[in-house]
Amino acid sequence: MEKQKFIQYGFGPIGQRVASYAIDRGFELEAVIDSDPAKAGKNAGEILGKDLSVIIQDSSYDVFKSSKSNLVFLTTMSALEDAYPQILNCIHFKKNIVSTCEELSYPWKQNYHLSSRIDMLAKLNKVAVVGTGVNPGFAMDALPVFLSSICKDVESVRIERYQDASIRRLPFQKKIGAGCTLEEFDALVKEKKIRHVGFTESVQMIAKSLGWELEKIEETIEPVIAKKRVKSEFLKVPKGRVCGVDQICKGYMNGKEAITLELQAYLGHKKPHDAVMIKGEPNITSVVKGGINGDIATCAIAVNAAKKILESEPGLKTMLDLGLTSWYK
Amino acid sequence: MEKQKFIQYGFGPIGQRVASYAIDRGFELEAVIDSDPAKAGKNAGEILGKDLSVIIQDSSYDVFKSSKSNLVFLTTMSALEDAYPQILNCIHFKKNIVSTCEELSYPWKQNYHLSSRIDMLAKLNKVAVVGTGVNPGFAMDALPVFLSSICKDVESVRIERYQDASIRRLPFQKKIGAGCTLEEFDALVKEKKIRHVGFTESVQMIAKSLGWELEKIEETIEPVIAKKRVKSEFLKVPKGRVCGVDQICKGYMNGKEAITLELQAYLGHKKPHDAVMIKGEPNITSVVKGGINGDIATCAIAVNAAKKILESEPGLKTMLDLGLTSWYK
Repeated sequence: MEKQKFIQYGFGPIGQRVASYAIDRGFELEAVIDSDPAKAGKNAGEILGKDLSVIIQDSSYDVFKSSKSNLVFLTTMSALEDAYPQILNCIHFKKNIVSTCEELSYPWKQNYHLSSRIDMLAKLNKVAVVGTGVNPGFAMDALPVFLSSICKDVESVRIERYQDASIRRLPFQKKIGAGCTLEEFDALVKEKKIRHVGFTESVQMIAKSLGWELEKIEETIEPVIAKKRVKSEFLKVPKGRVCGVDQICKGYMNGKEAITLELQAYLGHKKPHDAVMIKGEPNITSVVKGGINGDIATCAIAVNAAKKILESEPGLKTMLDLGLTSWYK
Repeated sequence: MEKQKFIQYGFGPIGQRVASYAIDRGFELEAVIDSDPAKAGKNAGEILGKDLSVIIQDSSYDVFKSSKSNLVFLTTMSALEDAYPQILNCIHFKKNIVSTCEELSYPWKQNYHLSSRIDMLAKLNKVAVVGTGVNPGFAMDALPVFLSSICKDVESVRIERYQDASIRRLPFQKKIGAGCTLEEFDALVKEKKIRHVGFTESVQMIAKSLGWELEKIEETIEPVIAKKRVKSEFLKVPKGRVCGVDQICKGYMNGKEAITLELQAYLGHKKPHDAVMIKGEPNITSVVKGGINGDIATCAIAVNAAKKILESEPGLKTMLDLGLTSWYK
């Protein structure tokens, strides 16, 4: 059987890992695109520690016009507006897209106009597009949605993603403000540098599937203060400094909190887990103890979703539309 | 908006509950079919405790030839061979089918011939057919499959469904042999009267999704002996008697246990839960504490799956093919 070729578009930490997983699973890396001048011209194989020679290119046009692959892993941007020109470019060259762009996971409410255009152009070019990842894309939306299948009634949904950030990469620890003073934390929040992207999309994906019309969605970001000295491989945070973040997103219906997502990520979290709590008939509490490793899970689900997106009808899809994704041999 | 009409085919405990849930969710009960002469002619509304007048009929032909509904909930049989003529009958009259027939949940391996015929006829008649329920259909197949999406590698899957049977209905307690002597239990197992139907189908559904070719599937059924006197609302089981069942199904690949399903159901189980344990990268253990109530869940998921089956392409579907089912308003 011929190998499934793919193009890796975006070659940061997530892109490298997605490419690496895909290669391990028998996909063939046809090309790598990254606009970073420090990367262009280098051999992606060397960066991945794999025996292959694929030179990183900064021009997507050069890659696409000669490409034979029908699949792109797009791992460049979190905001849909930023990723949009790249998405259109892929579609124009008839590439199916699996992207970790957070706002693409469920863009229909926040970005209706862009969503419709992507959907229409994807259909015209007979390709399918999906945004996925562990979160958004799975732990705080698709999984709770699927768990609700066994309920006769659902009143409200609460999802907790509690993470001990001390085992994560340094960029992640910085992204949650570990080591900051309160003032520094507040400034970073204002600059939107401390913020998990995709909460609103997750809430809207759940609401869509459950048929709920929400009145409003509110998001808060609070620092978690170290009660004693905490440390990771990379950082030491003294007592009183910020050791991470507590981000909450609430969707309201009929004046009540119907959907609540809480992400706690800080150094030294004592109860890391991923929990889905459905209040209804019956009540369901489903827990992944220790929590889901976000770096592995996001890249794994992107590769796993590729099979479904290649089998899918054309158009802009979400994890609600594809059949059940799974790992596969 | 016009109400979604449905026909309830099979009016035992599960059928009654499915019909009841569907009505509560805004579906309109058009007709009830049950071959039991003791039921025919009675008002289904009275049995359900609902203010409606639908006379139970024993002739499916009479119902179908005048029916306007495009949806049947089929809750008659566990074995596909038994349900097959009824399925064909529904398809002939262009009814989409959601069934709790255990062997219909993933019939492609065990009953390839019947499956192909159902699929072909469903396509000809432009209807979709699915078998679902909590188990098979969700807890021991579709849910673990979906959870594997976040894995880079999967080596093996173990699923535990541990139930305290003392809170279940009397027929369920009898079905697991509670109160039997060992001899009685063995005799009932030989007669296939004590046996959860659908284990093989669950194992095959998982294998299909993960792309695993299994060499063999083995099933064992063992009694659980009461270590002290246990009781339920309905039964008292003295020490030494059977208080329930421990059923295990194993799928082997390359000489190793790759998929293991264990159902423990007995009076007084101290650790009821539904657990999915994936050994791979990463390891995932997901637990629903207390376990999923089978009676509610099976009927709820049947009603919840109806939406997806009505939107689906024609043919014989499984929970792997439909998009993500969910509760919905």
